[in-house]
Amino acid sequence: MSADGEALDEVTPERVRRVEDALAEGRNAEAKQLLEELSAVGQAAVLEQVSEPQRDALVGLLKRDLDPEVLTELDDEVRDDVLDQLDSKDIAAAARELETDDAASLLEDLPEAERREILAELTPDERAEIEKALAYPEDSAGRMMQRSLVRVPQSWTVGQVIDYCREAGDLPEDVYDLFVVDGSGRLKGSVPLGRMLRTKRPVPITELVDPDIPSVPATADQAEVAHLFRDQNLVSCPVVDDKGRLLGVIMVDDVVDVIDEEAEEDLLKMGGVGHDDMHANTVRTVRLRGVWLAVNLLTAVIASLVIGQFEGAIEKIVALAVLMPIVASMGGNAGTQTVTVAVRALAMGELTPANALRFIVKEIAVGGLNGMIFALLMGAAVVLWYHDWRLGAVIGAAMICNLVAAALAGTLIPIGLQKFGVDPAVSSTVFLTTVTDVIGFLAFLGLATLFLL
Amino acid sequence: MSADGEALDEVTPERVRRVEDALAEGRNAEAKQLLEELSAVGQAAVLEQVSEPQRDALVGLLKRDLDPEVLTELDDEVRDDVLDQLDSKDIAAAARELETDDAASLLEDLPEAERREILAELTPDERAEIEKALAYPEDSAGRMMQRSLVRVPQSWTVGQVIDYCREAGDLPEDVYDLFVVDGSGRLKGSVPLGRMLRTKRPVPITELVDPDIPSVPATADQAEVAHLFRDQNLVSCPVVDDKGRLLGVIMVDDVVDVIDEEAEEDLLKMGGVGHDDMHANTVRTVRLRGVWLAVNLLTAVIASLVIGQFEGAIEKIVALAVLMPIVASMGGNAGTQTVTVAVRALAMGELTPANALRFIVKEIAVGGLNGMIFALLMGAAVVLWYHDWRLGAVIGAAMICNLVAAALAGTLIPIGLQKFGVDPAVSSTVFLTTVTDVIGFLAFLGLATLFLL
Repeated sequence: MSADGEALDEVTPERVRRVEDALAEGRNAEAKQLLEELSAVGQAAVLEQVSEPQRDALVGLLKRDLDPEVLTELDDEVRDDVLDQLDSKDIAAAARELETDDAASLLEDLPEAERREILAELTPDERAEIEKALAYPEDSAGRMMQRSLVRVPQSWTVGQVIDYCREAGDLPEDVYDLFVVDGSGRLKGSVPLGRMLRTKRPVPITELVDPDIPSVPATADQAEVAHLFRDQNLVSCPVVDDKGRLLGVIMVDDVVDVIDEEAEEDLLKMGGVGHDDMHANTVRTVRLRGVWLAVNLLTAVIASLVIGQFEGAIEKIVALAVLMPIVASMGGNAGTQTVTVAVRALAMGELTPANALRFIVKEIAVGGLNGMIFALLMGAAVVLWYHDWRLGAVIGAAMICNLVAAALAGTLIPIGLQKFGVDPAVSSTVFLTTVTDVIGFLAFLGLATLFLL
Repeated sequence: MSADGEALDEVTPERVRRVEDALAEGRNAEAKQLLEELSAVGQAAVLEQVSEPQRDALVGLLKRDLDPEVLTELDDEVRDDVLDQLDSKDIAAAARELETDDAASLLEDLPEAERREILAELTPDERAEIEKALAYPEDSAGRMMQRSLVRVPQSWTVGQVIDYCREAGDLPEDVYDLFVVDGSGRLKGSVPLGRMLRTKRPVPITELVDPDIPSVPATADQAEVAHLFRDQNLVSCPVVDDKGRLLGVIMVDDVVDVIDEEAEEDLLKMGGVGHDDMHANTVRTVRLRGVWLAVNLLTAVIASLVIGQFEGAIEKIVALAVLMPIVASMGGNAGTQTVTVAVRALAMGELTPANALRFIVKEIAVGGLNGMIFALLMGAAVVLWYHDWRLGAVIGAAMICNLVAAALAGTLIPIGLQKFGVDPAVSSTVFLTTVTDVIGFLAFLGLATLFLL
């Protein structure tokens, strides 16, 4: 029995440092051994945490001894780097040991030529399996599924099934359900192992079959698959072709990876960074983030063009320049709150045409109420600060305008983007800050021009 | 066999509207029937999407007929609202039908008095089970686990285990592993059902036992449990007390909920909103978001105090007021990118003391490089716009300063907060924008004062 949480704690910073020290001091055998003592997940964590030259050195030490499972646990950027260090024969050996879905995802990002070289190292059967998986679109159920499963004809009894399981040597270890098929391979339902175990041998398997189990087509997107597992609390789900024939099965642990990935993507996109930014090298990171910053620069320039229209007002009342960022920033923050809730609710299917209007109305109410509260607060502060009640009234009115605009933009932008097929997580915030900056400066400086000059 | 993705599509906006229309037109029996045709997940989705009065009306129609599973699928805010509509007897009836962990989470948020009333409706056995679960801290493994599992003594053979399973009537349906215990109830390991199925009856169960399975103490936090499932691709995990005795088992579908919850929390916190904001009512939302906006107001005021120091410079060169938001906003965006990556990496255990220094250095390099790129771009634009190369140089220099400061703040703030036990997802962005606003305005207006006046 492993100690509690040992798996979590096995990769301590000390462990990583010992590996680094051993490498630095040329104690290669020790570095290799320190790594190999860890689980596949642990080895992957170490490879992700050391620097790139150290990682290359470690992979060079391991070569053929590298546990293929480690490859499946690495982040994409790091995996590409590791695969670069291995030759086709090593990668082919690794692919052979993995489940088809894992092998396919190992090969999917490699250049065509290298992939063909690796496939040539495999037996025709192995190659056919992997090529079949690669034929499905990336991020589809067909890619996620494993082909090894227990498939039994509907004519069998419980006893026949048990005997078959005892005799077949190559059944997968992680079986939780048996799948029952008809003569043409069409899925008729599943039998949980636990149910079969509780049933006497002569009972026909059809009596135990759950015919109403969900299944997914091989072309379904992985996000849909994750939704299905989540909604129905599934542990495994059969994958079928367009004629309902059983192709494979998706296991929940692969779905957990997808859920993690999707959640991470939403978070990172909202923050203006791409997937795997953490492990990309400096130049790549500069390029990826630069694109986003360039879009934001445009937004900022638009906002400052608005300010430019009011140079005369600012020259006369310099306090306007001091106070204007407050109005813009409060709008930006309130709008970000709304956008965050909307993006998450859209992703989880909780914001739909059925309740969109109610959501928008609520957000406007929230924006209006918070606008009034902060209008009073900020207005009072400005009156105290500048002894000018008209300036206080202007900043208050601008605050209300901008928080209502933020609520409107914060709801309509993500809903609209989703409607036009654009991922709301990526671009909502840019559009939003454009609106809240422009409206913030326009309302404040415009009202000031009207009432204070 | 259900149609593909039917579960996903069963709650269409049309369906929700039909329920709403039936309610509005007093066709209560139809509304009830439309709801009851759906799965528990579907019913929960409808209850979340209709307005609060409509929801109360639906719950009033269902009362005792409400499927208890629906309650476990609702978001917290909505569930509290639904429970308010039910009396103690109804809730007790629901609790009785649920797994202990679900029943406990149903009762945990209720006021002490109401909870006691409901528990009094249960049999002493049922009450003891739920009270035992409630004795564990919220969000602990003890709360997540279910107590129904298959526990067999280590002296049995495969045949004895199969016979026991066939005779015992009350075994749970979703069994994937059997747990083997010694005479004092201490966990000795597990046997996957698939492995047992493949083994002949006379084989002793100890020959099949996997003694090295992970287990978690009942007091472990749910985030740790999720990490363990993720790292080891588990489907179920036994929970033990401090003496290693088997208490219950956590199933992967409950872990999927935790993973969703944790991912959602990080995303929402970064956006400055709380968990379940979507379903909170307007007043509650105003209050919750207002707190965050107040903190941000303070930040904005600090930034404008900085600007206030340079009123003289702005009066002389009004272009400074026009351009200063660009410098601040670019810093804010670049810093948000860094903070997002850091928060996610900290949450996933990918950013540790072992690689923190490397991460900081990389971020500073990225900030410096992007700073130079955008300094050139913006500097050139300003020279073209204002025909003043010195103004262009000043904005360029300020841009570089602020993007490097953003990189430093974006790494050090989350790492520091985590070190002091503060959740970096909640507060990193406020601190960050304070830094990028202050440094942005200070660098730009300060350099302008030094070189342009």
